[in-house]
Amino acid sequence: MTFAYKIDGNEVIFTLWAPYQKSVKLKVLEKGLYEMERDEKGYFTITLNNVKVRDRYKYVLDDASEIPDPASRYQPEGVHGPSQIIQESKEFNNETFLKKEDLIIYEIHVGTFTPEGTFEGVIRKLDYLKDLGITAIEIMPIAQFPGKRDWGYDGVYLYAVQNSYGGPEGFRKLVDEAHKKGLGVILDVVYNHVGPEGNYMVKLGPYFSQKYKTPWGLTFNFDDAESDEVRKFILENVEYWIKEYNVDGFRLDAVHAIIDTSPKHILEEIADVVHKYNRIVIAESDLNDPRVVNPKEKCGYNIDAQWVDDFHHSIHAYLTGERQGYYTDFGNLDDIVKSYKDVFVYDGKYSNFRRKTHGEPVGELDGCNFVVYIQNHDQVGNRGKGERIIKLVDRESYKIAAALYLLSPYIPMIFMGEEYGEENPFYFFSDFSDSKLIQGVREGRKKENGQDTDPQDESTFNASKLSWKIDEEIFSFYKILIKMRKELSIACDRRVNVVNGENWLIIKGREYFSLYVFSKSSIEVKYSGTLLLSSNNSFPQHIEEGKYEFDKGFALYKL
Amino acid sequence: MTFAYKIDGNEVIFTLWAPYQKSVKLKVLEKGLYEMERDEKGYFTITLNNVKVRDRYKYVLDDASEIPDPASRYQPEGVHGPSQIIQESKEFNNETFLKKEDLIIYEIHVGTFTPEGTFEGVIRKLDYLKDLGITAIEIMPIAQFPGKRDWGYDGVYLYAVQNSYGGPEGFRKLVDEAHKKGLGVILDVVYNHVGPEGNYMVKLGPYFSQKYKTPWGLTFNFDDAESDEVRKFILENVEYWIKEYNVDGFRLDAVHAIIDTSPKHILEEIADVVHKYNRIVIAESDLNDPRVVNPKEKCGYNIDAQWVDDFHHSIHAYLTGERQGYYTDFGNLDDIVKSYKDVFVYDGKYSNFRRKTHGEPVGELDGCNFVVYIQNHDQVGNRGKGERIIKLVDRESYKIAAALYLLSPYIPMIFMGEEYGEENPFYFFSDFSDSKLIQGVREGRKKENGQDTDPQDESTFNASKLSWKIDEEIFSFYKILIKMRKELSIACDRRVNVVNGENWLIIKGREYFSLYVFSKSSIEVKYSGTLLLSSNNSFPQHIEEGKYEFDKGFALYKL
Repeated sequence: MTFAYKIDGNEVIFTLWAPYQKSVKLKVLEKGLYEMERDEKGYFTITLNNVKVRDRYKYVLDDASEIPDPASRYQPEGVHGPSQIIQESKEFNNETFLKKEDLIIYEIHVGTFTPEGTFEGVIRKLDYLKDLGITAIEIMPIAQFPGKRDWGYDGVYLYAVQNSYGGPEGFRKLVDEAHKKGLGVILDVVYNHVGPEGNYMVKLGPYFSQKYKTPWGLTFNFDDAESDEVRKFILENVEYWIKEYNVDGFRLDAVHAIIDTSPKHILEEIADVVHKYNRIVIAESDLNDPRVVNPKEKCGYNIDAQWVDDFHHSIHAYLTGERQGYYTDFGNLDDIVKSYKDVFVYDGKYSNFRRKTHGEPVGELDGCNFVVYIQNHDQVGNRGKGERIIKLVDRESYKIAAALYLLSPYIPMIFMGEEYGEENPFYFFSDFSDSKLIQGVREGRKKENGQDTDPQDESTFNASKLSWKIDEEIFSFYKILIKMRKELSIACDRRVNVVNGENWLIIKGREYFSLYVFSKSSIEVKYSGTLLLSSNNSFPQHIEEGKYEFDKGFALYKL
Repeated sequence: MTFAYKIDGNEVIFTLWAPYQKSVKLKVLEKGLYEMERDEKGYFTITLNNVKVRDRYKYVLDDASEIPDPASRYQPEGVHGPSQIIQESKEFNNETFLKKEDLIIYEIHVGTFTPEGTFEGVIRKLDYLKDLGITAIEIMPIAQFPGKRDWGYDGVYLYAVQNSYGGPEGFRKLVDEAHKKGLGVILDVVYNHVGPEGNYMVKLGPYFSQKYKTPWGLTFNFDDAESDEVRKFILENVEYWIKEYNVDGFRLDAVHAIIDTSPKHILEEIADVVHKYNRIVIAESDLNDPRVVNPKEKCGYNIDAQWVDDFHHSIHAYLTGERQGYYTDFGNLDDIVKSYKDVFVYDGKYSNFRRKTHGEPVGELDGCNFVVYIQNHDQVGNRGKGERIIKLVDRESYKIAAALYLLSPYIPMIFMGEEYGEENPFYFFSDFSDSKLIQGVREGRKKENGQDTDPQDESTFNASKLSWKIDEEIFSFYKILIKMRKELSIACDRRVNVVNGENWLIIKGREYFSLYVFSKSSIEVKYSGTLLLSSNNSFPQHIEEGKYEFDKGFALYKL
């Protein structure tokens, strides 16, 4: 690893990339101030043999300001405090822990998943999650962010584990414990921007692009002068989470905001690093473009899977009747059918919301190149009142929605608490210390998302914590759905037959067919089978081909 | 064509895309004011039967301001004046006029090519150019720009032919006359930005991107809301120059500044339109990325050829000894050898000037995917004193440089006047009317290019006009080089053998070998042949294998 430090016997070699600076001193708290050597690319280095793990340090710049290490491994006192030297992990295993086809993902925000809001809290729930049947937990970003309350997208130290969650040791332990239970760990990482507070990189060098902007702030410089070093900073970060924490995969935030005109896009290089270590990488992309996941020979970045908002939006708009914002593009049952069959509803179609033709057909890509969900941190948290879908639809619709995605050929992702019918909201919350920024965030969330609760107020964060009031019926329904998914080998196989009427949908796979009745309908069923699972008792144990009157609900039949 | 107007019998249908406007009136001078109809996408239309060719019109916006038509076909009174209805051309031919392998391009700035500085002036020189042996003239941008003096990259009306050059009729005549002489016409078009004065599009709609910036100003919106209409505005512009003016090809300015995250890049779509009409498209690209010209199956945009600055820089730096700016990356004979063999010198190599790893190898692409030159409007005009290479090197070097590129496998492009040894400078000049802009351009050129002459002053423009003082020896040397290029079927075939010593280079093709002696050298020649052409009389008429003492110069031998 180029950045931060390397522990070599009793020597520690510090490296800081700061081409804007003429001279830099390393200040090791309670030990001394050391002039560093500068090379022509702006790398400052020094080797000390009087420092050790747990020592804290800062860098003193030309203007005498003292800043943390941008590649810090640990910020015990937060984004403005000193960086701490931590023990490097001994080994990591290079085998594949997670196979795409087995993936059932569970998205967790560490701070609100349990009352204590720490990695320990998550460890306490691993058996529960194992019992649920998921195969991987996806941890929302843990790169050190300002304060204690943040979704994680305001992180500014890409290599430092959030102190309030339990720091490096806490996360190592979580990964190890999860592996012991046979659960994979996917880490949400943010390479399209950094947070607005605590970003000292701007003083050091062209870490950020002058050419491109994102809605959330500065974006990394992947294709301009000195982008080699920035690309290395990011690619080594991927390697770091694998080698130092043994994570099994990554979820890349908003890759559509990562602009790179280099011959080899940074996303392709990230995928190469991930695959070198037999891990997987998932991307959130708003482009509806199969290029993200297509193999290299088909001009793709070779990322393993991408999120499919269209699948969510089509179900959400149809079940809730909502048409505000991007839901204006959805609302018909045909959209659900289209997404089920073709992944993207907008695959070269004009989008009224976007006011442009959007997307491209996915062609023959198999289902495990796509991640679907009926909720996630954005789809809940960007709503003014942070309502979960359970508060927006009746119970039957909730179960229908769950079945639709958990029995789809696509990789399902459960939003924490959804499986037991959690009703608490999930708000946007933050813990900045800069008053202007705090005011800006308040006004921004109010204006853009209609959020009345104050993101900065701890009560908003606390209101977003899971209640753990388990609705046993919902919970067992989710468990069986997951079990069925595994037993009927549904994953990845898009060769399903989808038939729909005005208010119903029948999906037939190799060994099953499922009935989704959105309102009382008379349906001509062309298959026969035995009931495996249903959302209510109105469905017959055994079905023959023929015409039936069905109440609203879902049923899964073994052919 | 969607934009501007369509003449249909005695009806004229006007269309303006202006989604920012609630209402727009069409004001036909001396005829009346007409309220237009608006559709939901912000297209305003009206059909009139009382207007005809030569009528002038403006659009009156919500704020009562009157603006020309952004898709104007003709701006007789300049960038702020009314737009004029012009006669639509009857027919265009759909055959290929220009084949890549025959291309020998001659770059012309209409305003300084002849004393009169018009299309007529160019027409007067067509026989001369035919005699020289070139096969296509490349006309620097003629989209209406402010005033009368501009390189063409400050154009703001993409569909309107510059009035001072002779307007639409003048350009049509030039293309027809060129075709009669068997010469193709390539038009330089600018789709990466528009000029800073006379751009009324900003009042009408999101023609320009909010996400990306270029060093020269606003860049078109190819991938954000309402980009469908902007893409149509550009793609129809390509079609327009073909259908209305019968041009044979395009040179796209600075494609590296065209950012488009859509599944299908606008460059690929432009190439599709060009190829639909059997024309060719060349791109100026700074990326050293074969993706620009690679076929679609190899993830390319399928553009026909791209400019290779590295070829120019390696010859220029080696012959002049200059190392300022980007020449710091060049200077060795090895660079010339590398560019000769591999096209890009920086094909994945670290560039000290760019301070990053730059470029990608071109692989097996044939020579006719690349355009080379020892001068062009930028390489001369961006120098503070606008010196041509003839002022920077001795006579022998000048001839050596000419032979190096005219006998290369790559498409050669001659900068107007170079073929007869023109010595006048070519400065950056402009004719803005906005005082703040004028001052800004003056200061900018001074600071960035060390240009002392005042770009805005007419004397700077006049000083850049060709003198037509023909150096007969140089002129005949160029003519024979071009003749040899054709006779020895040199074009496109990169299977040449390149051998070099400290100050010399021998290039062997199928039927020839050429000697480039940069300073007195003793050379072991491994081929035998008969002299076809040489830069001085020091070279033997016939050569056998063996060791020779050569003076500085160039010689071409038939094997």
